[in-house]
Amino acid sequence: MGFQHLYLVNPDKYPNPQATALAAGADDVLDYAIVTETLSEALIGCAFAIGMSARKRYLSHEIVNAREAALQANKYAGVQKVAFVFGTEMSGLTNAELDCCQLLAMIPANPEYSSLNLAAAVQIMCYELRMTTLENIEQANISAPAGEPLATNEELERFYAHLEETLLHIGYLNPNAPKKLFERMRRLYSRARLEKEEVNLLRGVLTLTKEPRKHTKY
Amino acid sequence: MGFQHLYLVNPDKYPNPQATALAAGADDVLDYAIVTETLSEALIGCAFAIGMSARKRYLSHEIVNAREAALQANKYAGVQKVAFVFGTEMSGLTNAELDCCQLLAMIPANPEYSSLNLAAAVQIMCYELRMTTLENIEQANISAPAGEPLATNEELERFYAHLEETLLHIGYLNPNAPKKLFERMRRLYSRARLEKEEVNLLRGVLTLTKEPRKHTKY
Repeated sequence: MGFQHLYLVNPDKYPNPQATALAAGADDVLDYAIVTETLSEALIGCAFAIGMSARKRYLSHEIVNAREAALQANKYAGVQKVAFVFGTEMSGLTNAELDCCQLLAMIPANPEYSSLNLAAAVQIMCYELRMTTLENIEQANISAPAGEPLATNEELERFYAHLEETLLHIGYLNPNAPKKLFERMRRLYSRARLEKEEVNLLRGVLTLTKEPRKHTKY
Repeated sequence: MGFQHLYLVNPDKYPNPQATALAAGADDVLDYAIVTETLSEALIGCAFAIGMSARKRYLSHEIVNAREAALQANKYAGVQKVAFVFGTEMSGLTNAELDCCQLLAMIPANPEYSSLNLAAAVQIMCYELRMTTLENIEQANISAPAGEPLATNEELERFYAHLEETLLHIGYLNPNAPKKLFERMRRLYSRARLEKEEVNLLRGVLTLTKEPRKHTKY
């Protein structure tokens, strides 16, 4: 489908001669794959990560179908890095991994048998991206509005770390069990697809939450 | 993808335990497959046969992409039998087989590596058919997705008022010109389409921003 940039997060075995044999004419994609330890590492520099999910676990996360996800990805892909994140064959993406994503996408399958093979899901998603790209080329003169640059994955992670620390500081999160509530906060902000400058604004608020400006009185 | 009627033309081996094993939850499709000697036999009673082709061999045949093929198939499928015809893994459909079809369809792949695996091609074509069918159903009755209840306009306004007051309190907003910066914050939260409960969470943070919990120490 014309894709080149494959990241493998903590693979069982790489390189794997069996995988290389199956890749047939596309073994260059596998040869140039980048292997990372964690998903966060793989997403460095990425501004918009879309997680593929078969289950509707995350009611408060926005879920769109593969076609809509391709359209949204295409809006940003001209200027910033966009990633599609797939889980393992057996269990898909974990909730923590989905929390690294700004959007969830699903492939509308037969509800009685809705979990596709990983290869099938990747194939469909890449196909939809290719279709969107081809349609865009056809409509070459209608260029999508650029918009403000989105925050990268690292900028978001630094913001989340700052947020968590601040929420602990003011006594909002229970230091013994901070996770659950904090995940809801993350999800809420991830839905907003924060711009670079908005992350700066929010971090400014966090800094002042810890240490309000002394010279002002209200 | 919700399909049931599989015809196998002159298969090497059927039933095939390996195929049954790979079919996983969809082995019923394989169990009920109808085996014929020739393609013509398989197409008995079919009004519209669409042959899948990777090559543009048949310039005199109309070739459309998979999406358009799904749309055209859908037009007839309500009243008459429609078939999608796939060739073998190694060599695709023969010219004689293509001549049994009323339309050729192709999947727009990377031109440098345009021949998909048979499984991938079937997956994409069935996906396109499912999408077309679902879109038809959606247009028939557009029902709003349930999801978590979103905050009402008043709840949002109360949240924004609380936010503004808090940002003034910590010295983030300039009391003489608070509007511009605050509008950016509003926009950011409005993009997230906040749920009722998320508004409550955020207001909890605001309350503690002004008055951190006294009995905790970090």
